[in-house]
Parts: sequence; structure tokens; C-alpha cells
Amino acid sequence: MLNPADDRLAASLPEGVLRPVTPAYLDEPRGRYRGQAGLVAAPRSTDEVAAIVCACADARVGIVTRGGGTGLVGGQVMSDGPAPLVLSLERMTALRGIWPEENVLVAEAGMTLQAVRDAANGAGRLFPLSLASQGTAAIGGCLATNAGGVTALRYGTARALCLGIEAVLPDGSVVHDLKRLRKDNTGYDIRDLMIGAEGTLGIITAASLKLVVPPPNVGTAMLEVPGPDAALSLLALAEGHMAGGVTAFELIGGQGLAFLAETLPEIRQPLPNSQWSVLIEVGLPEGMSSDTALEGLLTEAMERGLITDGVIAQSGQQAAGFWHLREHIPEANRRIGAVASHDISLPLSEIAGFIRDAGVALAARSDVRINCFGHLGDGNLHFNLFPAGGRNRAEYDDQRKDLSLMVHEMVVARGGSFSAEHGVGRLKVAELERWGDPARLAAMRAIKSALDPLGIMNPGAVLSPARG
Amino acid sequence: MLNPADDRLAASLPEGVLRPVTPAYLDEPRGRYRGQAGLVAAPRSTDEVAAIVCACADARVGIVTRGGGTGLVGGQVMSDGPAPLVLSLERMTALRGIWPEENVLVAEAGMTLQAVRDAANGAGRLFPLSLASQGTAAIGGCLATNAGGVTALRYGTARALCLGIEAVLPDGSVVHDLKRLRKDNTGYDIRDLMIGAEGTLGIITAASLKLVVPPPNVGTAMLEVPGPDAALSLLALAEGHMAGGVTAFELIGGQGLAFLAETLPEIRQPLPNSQWSVLIEVGLPEGMSSDTALEGLLTEAMERGLITDGVIAQSGQQAAGFWHLREHIPEANRRIGAVASHDISLPLSEIAGFIRDAGVALAARSDVRINCFGHLGDGNLHFNLFPAGGRNRAEYDDQRKDLSLMVHEMVVARGGSFSAEHGVGRLKVAELERWGDPARLAAMRAIKSALDPLGIMNPGAVLSPARG
Repeated sequence: MLNPADDRLAASLPEGVLRPVTPAYLDEPRGRYRGQAGLVAAPRSTDEVAAIVCACADARVGIVTRGGGTGLVGGQVMSDGPAPLVLSLERMTALRGIWPEENVLVAEAGMTLQAVRDAANGAGRLFPLSLASQGTAAIGGCLATNAGGVTALRYGTARALCLGIEAVLPDGSVVHDLKRLRKDNTGYDIRDLMIGAEGTLGIITAASLKLVVPPPNVGTAMLEVPGPDAALSLLALAEGHMAGGVTAFELIGGQGLAFLAETLPEIRQPLPNSQWSVLIEVGLPEGMSSDTALEGLLTEAMERGLITDGVIAQSGQQAAGFWHLREHIPEANRRIGAVASHDISLPLSEIAGFIRDAGVALAARSDVRINCFGHLGDGNLHFNLFPAGGRNRAEYDDQRKDLSLMVHEMVVARGGSFSAEHGVGRLKVAELERWGDPARLAAMRAIKSALDPLGIMNPGAVLSPARG
Repeated sequence: MLNPADDRLAASLPEGVLRPVTPAYLDEPRGRYRGQAGLVAAPRSTDEVAAIVCACADARVGIVTRGGGTGLVGGQVMSDGPAPLVLSLERMTALRGIWPEENVLVAEAGMTLQAVRDAANGAGRLFPLSLASQGTAAIGGCLATNAGGVTALRYGTARALCLGIEAVLPDGSVVHDLKRLRKDNTGYDIRDLMIGAEGTLGIITAASLKLVVPPPNVGTAMLEVPGPDAALSLLALAEGHMAGGVTAFELIGGQGLAFLAETLPEIRQPLPNSQWSVLIEVGLPEGMSSDTALEGLLTEAMERGLITDGVIAQSGQQAAGFWHLREHIPEANRRIGAVASHDISLPLSEIAGFIRDAGVALAARSDVRINCFGHLGDGNLHFNLFPAGGRNRAEYDDQRKDLSLMVHEMVVARGGSFSAEHGVGRLKVAELERWGDPARLAAMRAIKSALDPLGIMNPGAVLSPARG
């Protein structure tokens, strides 16, 4: 217990919700922040969430909501200020219902993304959101951060896959809006306001999610491309052919393959020497062979000089192997240890120029190695910097801030975003203040004050608390 | 000029923006409301919009923003209270830019939806939003009301097709957020808050819009189905076959065909005697014949008893004829003259039961004729009531309110919405207060007060002004 207020607070909570404050509630994957907690509470129901929120409001104690804890921008850990209550959704994991004939599933917020995907799968449906961390990430956290992942190109981000939410607002009231409707134009879009607010406006406790019928024919290929420009032309060619059938289009830089070979040598690499490659997945209608479609695409792309080599997966197992490779790039990065990571997006026509110019500018300033990879179809790159071979990240402590500023300035100058899919959290509060549109920021602050006048919801995330 | 304040207000506006107050600025398509205006202003630029908003804020004069004026719920006309300034976007019609290689277009808010579609088309792209009123409806109004239309099944509503906005807030500040990005998780979703707010939180002046590559093979068919249940099974079958390739799936009731035959006999009807029929459009990949795909679907559907007759369009002209029929149902309805119109949505599995039960309940209460049609794939029906043959709508004046209440109560009891795509406007303020979730309504009111403390933005729309 960090301060006496917590004793009174603890006594006012629903019975049986308190959990021991263990390190697992205080960490985040990149180890940049160490959280703190006066109390940890794990409610079993929406009513208990509401009771906890009311108690925290009365006690003026901040609430940090925690799902799977996989966020990459420190939204789930509060290092500074008075110790908060950590509200863990680990016990709210029920599947409330599934309506395959409607393509709808209603999940509690603590359900993992993998569990949601499995439930959909069990009913012959697909919940398309897909992230490397899906075994741990909670669906509530995916919504609170508007997670993106590898299928956003076709199916959109978490926002596009949510039909309705149940949420507890900062005054303890509960928004009941778990409609199973595709269209509902009845007032302001409170759902989308909660989605992406990173727990600063309320707590999403359940969601009505959109499922799809899985495409009958799925094909996967890894293709070597001359560069990012050719990759984008290849994407345009594929989209022209496939009528919306391109599910994923991932760019993989040669540095990422080298890191994989170094840290995870057991992972098979179909094109180990490619400077740039692309992982494409297509999902096509009944009666259309994905092999034939991909072969047709490859032939045309080869003729146009857009690809120089390629492998079409000949089995589901081989396709899974390609994805296994792609999804382990973040793990290889962790093992190497990044100097700085950037989750950026750019207008598609600015990407090739950015990669070229940023590479030149960084080389002039530092010996960092660049691992550039990500969701090219969305214009979303992970542009991460690593120590030169033989050096370690600590040696770059004095460069980190400058290098990141340089990268972000180049992104913003090209009309891009300094946070494409990870969110703002605590890591990018200053970036948002620096580059966010002033009128939009003022509107955000007005909304924060209106809905959370006591400032108890995830204090210090997204907006700085002093002005929040 | 309706009150002296307007003289001072007029003098404070940018030069040359005033227009004569003509009836065209004061009407709405269904003739339920007659608007009023102290002044009409038609700004040429976002700066002029901001100046007008500042002047109105100073003078405490309400602003009713007007695009094409095609809204069906009275959001564009203010009948009661102090006369507002009508802000017409008719002079802000520029295409600010188009980036076909990025699938992005930036349009000013006064551009008609048709003009946006034409611009996309001219660059080999498709802007998928499609409404019967698209020749007149402004894109700003489509966004302000989150318009739906016939392609929402595949491409989503206006919200899903907007990447960013420029908007003037009630204090005259301008949100500059016309990013050409697919992913941008940098704070609260102010864009989606403005979308669907019907001009009550600010004025959208321009938007960055998502284009798509047109599907290479488009097929269209009209199919007679035994009933709504069979139609939904047909949709599920088609979605299973087509891997997201179903672009539109429209239900047409026999009463609608009869109204067309009566009021617009020149329109060719391929299945004139169908009690229920469906208009389906598919958009398929390269190398896949839409004829073959539709024939395969029809054969299987016929075997399962899901369709009883059908015509596959053999030419673009014939397909256009099917759409011409569908799009003239609202015009036929206008000529007959509705007693009451309902723009409802339901969970898909509730639709058939609702249509059956509502028909029985209405027949027990009245002799109205029901024309039920709409976007079945979205669960969105237009469930409109018309006078019995030989009677006229005025004879139903004393029934209208009760019948609508009965319909809406049955919809809400099944988890549906009383406004699927038209919005709340002024027509459904009481319905929103009655059936809206209380916590969500309270959040809406808090946001309205925070962003528009003077209450000058479209007063009386969406939220009642007394509590707004």
C-alpha cells in the first residue's frame, strides 16, 4: 500500500476483487517503463468495474486499466505521480454470445484476441484482426488502442471490426451499446471515441465484433522485390487483379532477415538473401484457384520487373511457415535490442522516398542499422534502429532522442504519422503535443475534461496531466 | 431579416458571402418541415467558414449548415426558435487533389457525391458510396450524416470511407486533419465524432476520402425469393462463395414494384409479379467470370429452394436498368405519399420475424399498405407505410404517431435501431431521448456542452436544445 488513501479505497471495493501487487501488473514488453500500483483489482463483472470506478472517483485515485499488457507505448504502466489502482480485466473473459448467421460475436474485454479468433473459427467464421501478440493481447486492449496488425489492408483496424461496445465511463455510469447492427445512426459516435482513447475516457468492458465468412481459397507467397517502390507497384497490380482479395501485404527488409538468422536460426527462410521482400496473402472466391491467381500475378510482375524471385506456398504448412517468419521479426528485434523504434505511417507515394532519404540522413549521423518492415499496404512501417554490429544499445543512449526526432520530423514533413497503430500511451505524449493539430488537441482536452473532470482515467496517457 | 441582431451580424461577415434568403434554402425533401433563416451565407473558403462561425458565436446566432439539402430527417431545416444563419456549402466544391496511386481523393464539403464519384472514375478509381440522391447530396452532408446507401455491405458507410477531415469547430478554430493515411493512432477520434454529428459539433469543410480499385468483373442479377428468410440464406450462400465479393444485396418488396408500376410505368420490371425479390451485385477478381459465378450461385440457390426465378443482367445497360428500378422506389413512394417512413436496422436473424410480426400487428390496427425494401445485407430496411388504395395520407394524420411508435417499439425490442442510416436530425430527437442509452446520451450532452457551449451549431438537431 503506497498511501493511506488506499486503505480506505480498498475497503470500499467489491468483495474479492483485490489481487496481490505482483511485478506482472507493472511491466511492459519493451522494458522502458516500470509501473506502480497502490492496489490491483480484478473485477468479475461490468457492475464490479463500475463499483471500482465509483470508489476511485470518490478517493480521487487514478485507474490504469490492463488487458494483456502487450501495448508498446506505455499506456498500461504509470511510473510517475500518485500510485494508481491497476484494474485488470483478467477475469472478464466470457464469450457472451456468437451469432454466426449474423457474423457477430460479443466478447468480454479480457478475452484474448486468440480466444476471440478461436471462437469465431469454431463457428465457421473469421475474426480477421491478427497481431503477433494475439495469444496474450486482450480484445479490450486491442479496441482501446485501435490495434492494426497484418490484415488491416483488407478488413480495417480494430475500429472497423467493432459494431458496439459496453463501457464504464469515469463517473461509473455504464454505456450499454452492444448492438449487433451494421448501421445505427443515432447520435454521436461514442463507440469510436472510446476506441483508440487508450483507457483515458472510460473502460471498455465488452464489445460486439464483426465476423466474416473466411475466403474459400487462400494463397500465400513470398516475393523478392527490387525495392519499396516496386513493392508498391506490385501491390497496385495485385489490387487491380484481385478485386479487394489482397488480405495482407507485408514488407520485409533484408536487415530483418539477418536478425532472424542471427537470433532465431531455426526459422526457415525461403528467400534468405533478399534485400527487400514481400509477404502477400490473398483470399479469393469459390471456383478461383489462388495458385492460378498468384501465378498470373507473378508472371505479370516478373515481366514488369517488379519481382526478381518468389515462392508460392504449396501447402497450408508452408504458408504458416512464411507467417511464422514474419511474426518473429519483432522477437528477433527484441533479442538484438533496439536503439529506437518508430511506428510510422506515410502516404503510399511518400514511402519509397522516405526510406531512401531517412537512410541517407541516418547514415550521416550515426552507425545504427535500420530494420524497416511492416504493413506496406497500409503505409505503416516499423522503422527501427539498432546498434552497429558489435556495439550495444546503451552506447547509443545519448543519440536516441535526436535520432527519433529526426525520423519523426521526416515523417511529419511528408504528411505522415508518428504513431500509426501502437497509439500514444505515455511514450509519445510529447510528440502529440508537438505535431498534433492544435484545434484537434484542444477538442481532445475539452472532451477529456467533460467526461473525466477528476482526471482519474489512465492519468498521463495520451494527454499530459498538467493540461489534461 | 428577422431580427435586428442580424443587421449587426451581416455587417460582421466576410464580404460577398451573403445570399438572398430563397425558399430553396429552407426546404427538405419530404415537406415535413419549413425552415427559416435570418441570413444565408455561402462562404468560398474554410477561412470564410471560420469567420462566419466566429461572427455567429459573437452574435449568439445559430448556424444551420446546408449541403445538398437531401437529408430525410430535418437536420438541414430549423423551423422553431430564433432564426439561424444558413451556411450553404454551395461554393466550396473544389477537388483539392487526387492521388490514384494512393487510392485517395481530397474534396471540399460542397462537392456533390456524384462529382466525387466522377472524379474518382476519371482516375480509374471508384468512390464506392452510392445513394439515390447522389447527384444533389454534398459529400460534406454525406459525412455529417454518415450516409449509408447500397454499397455499405462491402465498403462500409461514409465513415469507413473517410481518412481525414478539415472542420471548423464552434469556437471558429479549424481542425486540419486531411491526412492521406490508412492508419493514424494519435489520440481521440475527432474525425468520427464529427462524422454523424449532423452539424451539431462543427462544420466539415473538406475530407480525405478512400478510393478503391474497381473490381474487374461486375455482375448483377434480380432474383425472386420466397421471402426475407430465404433472401438472408441466399446472402449467406453468396458470401460463402464470393469471399467478400458481394457489393450490394437489396431487398425489394412486391408493394414497391406495384407502386413503381402505378407511378412510373415506363420503368421496365424484369420480375413484375414477385412478392419478394433481391437485387444482387458482385464484383470479382480478374480471370473470374461474374456470369459463371452468378450462374453457380443461382443453381445452388435454386436447388436449396432459396430462389424461384431470376435474371442475370446480360449487359451493363441491363444492369443499369435493374439499378434504375431500385433507385426509383423512393420516387415512387413520394408520388404515392407515405403515411410514415421508418429507416430501421435489425440484427440479421431478427429481420424475417420482424417483417412477419410487424405486418400482422399493423394489419390489426390499420389498413395501411407496407412497402418494405432496403439494404438487407446491412440489416437496414426502409419500412414505410402508405394509405390504402383510394385513400390519401391526410386521412391517416391521427394514426401516424401511433403506428410509428408501434413499429419502432417492435424494432427496439428486437435489438434494432430506429435510425439506421438517415440520422436523427429534428425528426427523431424524441426517439433518441426515449430509446437512447442514458449513459451514452449523457456523454453526448457533455461533449456537446464542451465543444459548443453557446449551443450555436445546428440548434435542436440530434439533442433537444433545452438540455443540450
